[in-house]
Amino acid sequence: MRIHTDLTPTGTYRDVVVLIDVLRTCTVAPLLFERGLTELALTPSLRSARAAAAEGWLLLGERQGVPAEGFNFGNSPAEIAAIDLSGKRAVMVSENAPRWLPQVADAKCVLLGSLYNAAAVGAVAAAQAQESIDLVGSGFEGEPDLDDALGAGLLAALLGERLPTAARSGATRFALSLLRAFPDPMEALWQSVAGHYLRRVGLERDVAFAARVSASRVVPQLVGRQPGAGSAPLYLFAPAADPG
Amino acid sequence: MRIHTDLTPTGTYRDVVVLIDVLRTCTVAPLLFERGLTELALTPSLRSARAAAAEGWLLLGERQGVPAEGFNFGNSPAEIAAIDLSGKRAVMVSENAPRWLPQVADAKCVLLGSLYNAAAVGAVAAAQAQESIDLVGSGFEGEPDLDDALGAGLLAALLGERLPTAARSGATRFALSLLRAFPDPMEALWQSVAGHYLRRVGLERDVAFAARVSASRVVPQLVGRQPGAGSAPLYLFAPAADPG
Repeated sequence: MRIHTDLTPTGTYRDVVVLIDVLRTCTVAPLLFERGLTELALTPSLRSARAAAAEGWLLLGERQGVPAEGFNFGNSPAEIAAIDLSGKRAVMVSENAPRWLPQVADAKCVLLGSLYNAAAVGAVAAAQAQESIDLVGSGFEGEPDLDDALGAGLLAALLGERLPTAARSGATRFALSLLRAFPDPMEALWQSVAGHYLRRVGLERDVAFAARVSASRVVPQLVGRQPGAGSAPLYLFAPAADPG
Repeated sequence: MRIHTDLTPTGTYRDVVVLIDVLRTCTVAPLLFERGLTELALTPSLRSARAAAAEGWLLLGERQGVPAEGFNFGNSPAEIAAIDLSGKRAVMVSENAPRWLPQVADAKCVLLGSLYNAAAVGAVAAAQAQESIDLVGSGFEGEPDLDDALGAGLLAALLGERLPTAARSGATRFALSLLRAFPDPMEALWQSVAGHYLRRVGLERDVAFAARVSASRVVPQLVGRQPGAGSAPLYLFAPAADPG
């Protein structure tokens, strides 16, 4: 077993891949299911998302940190934590995690991970993996960012407890050193480029929400694709079974 | 002006690029000139290096941390600090920084940087750059490592003092956050994968040497290429003029 880390995606992935976007998509995704959502689609294509919305899906997400015109809700966990989504289905479009889905979607098992669902992701990933677990940061505008690097470090630490004999790549050890350097995850999120961005647009509450470690047991797992109207399909996610 | 950071090389570079290898090649390179060396060649090709040695160049470097057979000296700054190289020329082969030279060598100005010569590299880079400075880590076995990420953070901080209006990329801000997280650079080098490796082979002294910040004013700059006998040429370095 090998635990590998990419601060942003490189190459392709085969076995279990955890796509990490702490601020904010992979914090929001488990939360949506906690709020009662039954189906979640992610897509990097605004056109595909709008077409799904025309068929009755709620439209969630952001362009440059805030909801775009016609969106039902933004990408704000602090906002979504207060709404009831029972029985609804939603399509979410945002700028960091979804752009990488075409690159990671061919792996055997694709999970969405953050600090918020870290322990549960560790449990599912360790149970599912046959040969390797790739911890893949979404970064910010294509570059590595501290929030996701810290998330990779936390997941690597949790996986290390479950898979003590797994080999850890150099970048995994790098991520673990960040976890030690930032004993308070809030500090790392606050300093990240994404965190600065959110603070500038008045969304400090989202940074605080995303710093809650292992508060959710929901692990969104890729379960299928559906053709989209735009340049990318809809990637369909459902909660993975909790291996306990 | 734009300051960009790659924790390992991606793409190509145009203007000023600082290739960073704190443990150990870019710490050793300035030291060699301090010890009197007149000409330094780097190459990733052991065969090219051996051919140069057959023509009278000293052969320096390592394979897996220690000098290979027939090498005059290893890649150990603690060792090299004690020898007199007056009037000599040397070819150095090692596993991290040299492998990237074919990728970075077409930039207008290629410098070798580390903690050891950081202030001087900042001065030369700021004086030479027209549009951009790329801080490029060598990493360890192709993956990002903490020693070079910290080096990039230190160089970014020093460049920020000289070029206060320069734009800083996301990864540059990531590197700066590491610099703040590790106020004692020794701690970061100690935790890096390269640092672990050196400690395991008994070279703790090299980690300590490489943690000396801005102790050297020598900035090795790429000045030419010479055909090699192996798969890669010799890349020739000489000290850049100190802009003061």
